[in-house]
Amino acid sequence: MSSVCGRVLAEAIYATQPIPPADRALLDGFAVAASATIGAGSYNPLLLPLRVISAGDAMPPGTDAVIPLDLGQTQPPGVVECVEAVAPYENVEMQGCVAAPGALLASAGTLLSPAHIAMLINSGLASVMVVRRPLVRIVSAPGSSTPDSNGPMCRALVERDGGVVDDIVAAERTRQGIRRALETEGTDIVLVIGGTGPGAGDHAAAALAEAGDLAIHGIALRPGETAGLGHTRREVSVILLPGSPAPCFCAYEMLAGRAIRRLGGHDPATPYRPRVMRTARKIVSAIGMTEICPVRCTASDVVEPLPSFSEIGLMAAVAADGFVIVPEEREGYPQGAPVNVYLYEGSCIGG
Amino acid sequence: MSSVCGRVLAEAIYATQPIPPADRALLDGFAVAASATIGAGSYNPLLLPLRVISAGDAMPPGTDAVIPLDLGQTQPPGVVECVEAVAPYENVEMQGCVAAPGALLASAGTLLSPAHIAMLINSGLASVMVVRRPLVRIVSAPGSSTPDSNGPMCRALVERDGGVVDDIVAAERTRQGIRRALETEGTDIVLVIGGTGPGAGDHAAAALAEAGDLAIHGIALRPGETAGLGHTRREVSVILLPGSPAPCFCAYEMLAGRAIRRLGGHDPATPYRPRVMRTARKIVSAIGMTEICPVRCTASDVVEPLPSFSEIGLMAAVAADGFVIVPEEREGYPQGAPVNVYLYEGSCIGG
Repeated sequence: MSSVCGRVLAEAIYATQPIPPADRALLDGFAVAASATIGAGSYNPLLLPLRVISAGDAMPPGTDAVIPLDLGQTQPPGVVECVEAVAPYENVEMQGCVAAPGALLASAGTLLSPAHIAMLINSGLASVMVVRRPLVRIVSAPGSSTPDSNGPMCRALVERDGGVVDDIVAAERTRQGIRRALETEGTDIVLVIGGTGPGAGDHAAAALAEAGDLAIHGIALRPGETAGLGHTRREVSVILLPGSPAPCFCAYEMLAGRAIRRLGGHDPATPYRPRVMRTARKIVSAIGMTEICPVRCTASDVVEPLPSFSEIGLMAAVAADGFVIVPEEREGYPQGAPVNVYLYEGSCIGG
Repeated sequence: MSSVCGRVLAEAIYATQPIPPADRALLDGFAVAASATIGAGSYNPLLLPLRVISAGDAMPPGTDAVIPLDLGQTQPPGVVECVEAVAPYENVEMQGCVAAPGALLASAGTLLSPAHIAMLINSGLASVMVVRRPLVRIVSAPGSSTPDSNGPMCRALVERDGGVVDDIVAAERTRQGIRRALETEGTDIVLVIGGTGPGAGDHAAAALAEAGDLAIHGIALRPGETAGLGHTRREVSVILLPGSPAPCFCAYEMLAGRAIRRLGGHDPATPYRPRVMRTARKIVSAIGMTEICPVRCTASDVVEPLPSFSEIGLMAAVAADGFVIVPEEREGYPQGAPVNVYLYEGSCIGG
């Protein structure tokens, strides 16, 4: 069952038996019948049959309370000396007190944690139904002979988002080459990387239009404006990502990540934790474009803008503690303004 | 390289070449010599040699600027008509502008993200040194015949914390059985689950004392007070975890998780995000014990205490949005008091 950690429950889980299944000792000690301890005291010790019990053990028949180990004397042999009365069910976890049969243990859509796994095993389950991980094919159509960094980056991103990469396919950067790579079955989502621009060597959009439907090409997102969306004739979703590393990264985060997380039953929202902070300097952005602006934390609630993705590429993501999304209707934010920062890690100063 | 995502860099990475390695086009267009465009205008169009260039391509010799695709006319064939002068390096990413040779790209201890992977590949690296994942053996000495939920739960927790479980060993719950399971090599940490209590059937502490050194047995933590720490004669760290699921979970989180994260180069602090919130009701805790109290978020900054781990076991972790750690010197917190809540997920209301 540990393999379902991090997966999403596809079904609601109800208790099929009471939890715990029987009255159980809450601590190590001696199982007794509470009624037999009435009147016990240090001047009136009572000798009861010795029944040693460990925490978690089912209560033996005829007993309903536990005397803690350090409160019972076991001399003479075979008996326990009781010097204090105990109430019925004292130090006992009653059958069904955690959950009655039929009680909801976990609802469909629950992200399974290590504690869920133990709880499900304890409730008698050997397996559970989880949402299938989306199968993602990465089609890389690189424009140059430099080593492909987008494929490995997108594989890591897809895995972070709960998807499975079935293959990274290197396609010839022609309309036919990319279209052939799109003629695929058994995949939920295809990411085509590269060839999305307006240049003579850019064929991703035309290839998708031929292979099915190009719904969107060009979005008001910086970096990432040449990204696109559509689907093949076999209804496989296709996302076109720019071939430059920073636009590829940002378009993945804003488009592809959401689609993969949603399909896998996860929250589609960005995995980065949002937090309102103040900007130490003016953040500049072009009106009419949604812009991803990298920032660095300089104090517990202050960020400073870094050089943009278009200036320093992916180094912006690597050097930053997070980013601010400037909406298209804004030219940026003035110095000192509150901004919503999406933090890459929980490791920000004062975090 | 995508396999190093989530791993910790063991070495600092410096640029061995300038990044980018050559002057590159920032967008699709026409490569020109800026000096040849001086004087160009709509009333004085200049005809320049046609050199189509795609974003990311190296600039051809003799060129130092890019005219965007939509600003150049390509009639007659073989030339581009330039109607506006461009400055040197306009729309060009200069060699080394992101990093000069010798610049620090990532320091030792960096947690590698997808963007790091692309950045490292782009800087010409085919592999990097990462911190070895701690190898963890789980020795399960269950007290009853019910299915073992602690082993799968701890495996999921170890993997969350960056460790690798080499084996889950079911040990006979005797001093000899547990001691034999501790006679192990090639493992960094052993978790012994069960048999930590004061009962007659509890042999974990005695087995560890025989196998090496029992440094601590019994800690002022609730749940989890029978946990222990020590090491074998071969200097393998051993952590004794109680056999009841909730104490096992809490002792893992407070002791074992820290040790595994630290050994793997990760931040040893709890992976749960802390946040100051107010408690809607009194939180009660015994003085002298550090207590883990499950809570549920009821508003954006308000939590409500849930029944304790000792009342409902692991269901407390499953039902809770997080927990409050009440330090040993406190009896709890009054209604309305600010408390530091460790959130299991980022999914709290308003979170």
